Amino acid sequence: MISKKMENMVANSSAIRAMFEEGNRLAKLYGAENVFDFSLGNPNVPAPEAVKKAIIELLNEEDPVALHGYTNSNAGYEDVRQAVAESLNSRFGTKFAARSITMTVGAAGGLNVILKALLNPGDEVVVFAPYFGEYRSYVSNYDGVIVEISPNTEDFQPKLDEFEKKLTPKTRAVIVNTPNNPTGVVYSEETIKKMASIMENKQKEYGTDIYLISDEPYRELAYDGIEVPYLTKYYANTIVGYSYSKSLSLPGERIGYLVIPDEAADSENLISAANVATRILGFVNAPTLQQKVVKACLNEKTDISFYDRNRETLYNGLKELGFECIRPEGAFYLFVKSPMADEKAFCAAAKKYNILLVPGSSFGCPGYVRIAYCVAYETIVNSLPKFKELAAEYK
Amino acid sequence: MISKKMENMVANSSAIRAMFEEGNRLAKLYGAENVFDFSLGNPNVPAPEAVKKAIIELLNEEDPVALHGYTNSNAGYEDVRQAVAESLNSRFGTKFAARSITMTVGAAGGLNVILKALLNPGDEVVVFAPYFGEYRSYVSNYDGVIVEISPNTEDFQPKLDEFEKKLTPKTRAVIVNTPNNPTGVVYSEETIKKMASIMENKQKEYGTDIYLISDEPYRELAYDGIEVPYLTKYYANTIVGYSYSKSLSLPGERIGYLVIPDEAADSENLISAANVATRILGFVNAPTLQQKVVKACLNEKTDISFYDRNRETLYNGLKELGFECIRPEGAFYLFVKSPMADEKAFCAAAKKYNILLVPGSSFGCPGYVRIAYCVAYETIVNSLPKFKELAAEYK
Repeated sequence: MISKKMENMVANSSAIRAMFEEGNRLAKLYGAENVFDFSLGNPNVPAPEAVKKAIIELLNEEDPVALHGYTNSNAGYEDVRQAVAESLNSRFGTKFAARSITMTVGAAGGLNVILKALLNPGDEVVVFAPYFGEYRSYVSNYDGVIVEISPNTEDFQPKLDEFEKKLTPKTRAVIVNTPNNPTGVVYSEETIKKMASIMENKQKEYGTDIYLISDEPYRELAYDGIEVPYLTKYYANTIVGYSYSKSLSLPGERIGYLVIPDEAADSENLISAANVATRILGFVNAPTLQQKVVKACLNEKTDISFYDRNRETLYNGLKELGFECIRPEGAFYLFVKSPMADEKAFCAAAKKYNILLVPGSSFGCPGYVRIAYCVAYETIVNSLPKFKELAAEYK
Repeated sequence: MISKKMENMVANSSAIRAMFEEGNRLAKLYGAENVFDFSLGNPNVPAPEAVKKAIIELLNEEDPVALHGYTNSNAGYEDVRQAVAESLNSRFGTKFAARSITMTVGAAGGLNVILKALLNPGDEVVVFAPYFGEYRSYVSNYDGVIVEISPNTEDFQPKLDEFEKKLTPKTRAVIVNTPNNPTGVVYSEETIKKMASIMENKQKEYGTDIYLISDEPYRELAYDGIEVPYLTKYYANTIVGYSYSKSLSLPGERIGYLVIPDEAADSENLISAANVATRILGFVNAPTLQQKVVKACLNEKTDISFYDRNRETLYNGLKELGFECIRPEGAFYLFVKSPMADEKAFCAAAKKYNILLVPGSSFGCPGYVRIAYCVAYETIVNSLPKFKELAAEYK
């Protein structure tokens, strides 16, 4: 007898994961080269050489008791946190101290930690559809209530009027994800400023603190030289969640951090709460070897040219076939309009061609599908004739 | 404004952690050799060479996209789970399959996963004082209710009469930890059989399933050839939580597993729930490199001679000074009776000599202190004269 909360979760388990496991099954049956698995955001660019080099150096030079032991603080090694803070300050003109940085078990771990630190049962958390469906689970873990802002299917920038209307005295946090999963949009500085202004006004009106949680694992995956604003500079109550899953291709290693700036309301208590939550949720501390690795690799430039070529090839290819899709500026996803209103039926049709997509309803946006282009270039190229056959069904 | 649940947690934050951070402070002030920090169970035996060797081999031979990427199943690599199952079967005569094994972020991560899978708000979880205080936090995470069985200070084996009385229709799980933190006791086979019998009867009486969760990170730290029974063989509804933190000295790397045997009631659903909980709590999967490392090191024998010598030296030394303590058969802790009823005052007195202990009330057993002997042998030897001075205060 599993718990009631988990009964629902298991029944509605991740559509992304289901597709991914389906993709593995089909790959075993037909050969991976004949399967076009665009389901899971599992980076296909290998981790840079610097990661391997750093690990070997650490193994050869560090005392293993220190390297593999519990860290003094649950927030992580002091020197790693200091280095992360300095790197952010140097890149973005911020003024973070080591205390502002909590090393986390990926971005997902960080979101769980900060939501546990913040949410009382019934607190509202605003998200902008389409959004990463796991936010719903994370919020539910702590008995919060998700409030969705409906999708703006013209350009997938946030609907600010609806946002303003849906902020209430119970709003505890707003989660943004830019560059965005699943749409690939990057919020402009203008959008950020307007959002900040709306939230400032609501904070005053309600006498509450509304935290802006910036979930930004795709920060470095930004194309055409587009700038990705650093949100703490626009709104004081900003908390940043980051991970090296995409930038260093280490998703399985579970390594990221939270930034809780001094400017955030009650930051001292928040930092203490994040520390304690890290421990009692079972993370205890972020994996120690990987903490040291990311410190050593702080200046590694993510090679986005691989993803960029995939982006161009797939986007152009699908547009030529008549599919509707905004041109993504970041991340590694295309959010494509389904030719039929029932996008799950469209996904089923695509599967006949061994093309695996994720239905947009998993992201709160039916009628669309997500295509993850973090795959081999050959997969993109070889999928286009299949997409053509698929498209032909809808002429 | 942090959440109300976290307010309490932060206020009453871990006494163990507080002592540990105090130890680091004192070490910086006086030099580590002049501080006798017996507070945190941070293994002092380095990870075996085989770990370093395995990591380097994996880096050289595995495809980095596979080695550092998300695993296909949130439960971990199929081959790792298969290897763990086979290793357990070969050592204990069990019949686990790969599906029974869920790789976890340490034992703490595993306990959070299984408690999330099991607990409805108000469900009771029985623990035997003295117990690892974090159990209280883990249970509270999922709105369970801790039910303590009072300590049997004669030999610290569980009080079975009280146990029987305190099982109710709301009892969802019983957590045992043998070899034990903080006492070092190992439950005998006879004790296990009696406990199993009591639980079987209660299950029948109430028509419920009462899961026995065996938290066993200290399994390999067992001295004098004492046997540590494998609990799934005595009670069908047993779930095992394990970690390599102590056996391979990898506590910072966060790697362990859960065993959910086919014989456990509703095991299929439990396994699915553990899978989903792993994902939505933010673990996603146990760190991938370390999963492969533990597979490579499955046959490494933990060198317990280091801890054994510490055990003998400290236990004998303290007994000679007149301290009262049971002789521990496992783990790396001594649970010593405080010469004064207020053991926190005793800890404060010990701190004057730079001796750091943890009050037994952190474990639900006031009047006692925990001494972790996973420290350098020299620390043990050099502490004894200080313990002598401390003891003299109480003649």
